[in-house]
Amino acid sequence: MPIITVDGPKVTKKQKKELVNSLTKTASQILDFPEESIIVLLKETDPDNVGVGGKLISEREDNKN
Amino acid sequence: MPIITVDGPKVTKKQKKELVNSLTKTASQILDFPEESIIVLLKETDPDNVGVGGKLISEREDNKN
Amino acid sequence: MPIITVDGPKVTKKQKKELVNSLTKTASQILDFPEESIIVLLKETDPDNVGVGGKLISEREDNKN
Amino acid sequence: MPIITVDGPKVTKKQKKELVNSLTKTASQILDFPEESIIVLLKETDPDNVGVGGKLISEREDNKN
Amino acid sequence: MPIITVDGPKVTKKQKKELVNSLTKTASQILDFPEESIIVLLKETDPDNVGVGGKLISEREDNKN
Amino acid sequence: MPIITVDGPKVTKKQKKELVNSLTKTASQILDFPEESIIVLLKETDPDNVGVGGKLISEREDNKN
Repeated sequence: MPIITVDGPKVTKKQKKELVNSLTKTASQILDFPEESIIVLLKETDPDNVGVGGKLISEREDNKN
Repeated sequence: MPIITVDGPKVTKKQKKELVNSLTKTASQILDFPEESIIVLLKETDPDNVGVGGKLISEREDNKN
Repeated sequence: MPIITVDGPKVTKKQKKELVNSLTKTASQILDFPEESIIVLLKETDPDNVGVGGKLISEREDNKN
Repeated sequence: MPIITVDGPKVTKKQKKELVNSLTKTASQILDFPEESIIVLLKETDPDNVGVGGKLISEREDNKN
Repeated sequence: MPIITVDGPKVTKKQKKELVNSLTKTASQILDFPEESIIVLLKETDPDNVGVGGKLISEREDNKN
Repeated sequence: MPIITVDGPKVTKKQKKELVNSLTKTASQILDFPEESIIVLLKETDPDNVGVGGKLISEREDNKN
């Protein structure tokens, strides 16, 4: 049942596989739940749809905030 | 005010109409809230963006997990 | 994998059982997913923590909005 | 850390800038957190993916509900 | 229909009233939706349940991150 | 900016520290974002408020689903 949702940047399919694999392993070990019970949802967000400190990510010089 | 969010697969417009209609009716009856006060949000997810048991749905043989 | 989240009022355990049972059945039929794959999350919200139309639910005369 | 998520209609980039700027300022003042610590996520929703009162927004005459 | 969710710290009822009132006004003006259609959900989070930079807020010296 | 939300069971403070630390490290490496930019939100859910397969977790014999 544990559900891990990642609101983050657009990523490659390779990164998606790694994220799902690693986050599931980590959560499974710490929470002591079987891996098969864990769901990961990746929500890729456009830099025009996230703001940090009052400015869109797409307008900040350093967009790794 | 009740808000029902469905994180699920991509579906047809016919399925969306049915989901919104049926989920609203069900929640309205059980919660005793007027149907007009209930909001349903459908979040369609790409099989590359969901993992179950550490693997992307798009890579599992049976993707109805 | 479909995940149904309900942000709603505080409810009894009987209502919770009914909600989980009925919402799961409905979604299973319309989406054509096995019931066992469907998760329902109930998020009970305090009337002080929801606003409709700019006012807290706890301050509105009719709180079934 | 405060995270403000807006599930709403599709909007222009100008509206996004205004939303992020104004919501951040408002939350910063009321919560007494520095603006730089506040994140705004805009989730634009298709009118086919939202239902109010059991009907999709795309099928209601007045879709500003 | 616009739904504004604030994941933030625990706040007083006065702050809740102000948040709901101000965020609703702001969103109503920028999105051009009637105030009555806007819902605000406040999700108060325990400092033990939020991490920034790999550490729980409750363990950081400056918890206004 | 990446935000990792975990909807899961109630856990100890030790588990919270480990989760926040490990999930942040993992996401930082795979996404190539600085750890300081990553937020983890832990949402502990009562077994009466989660359903799997149409039944509350609190009523299933095996509640590690």
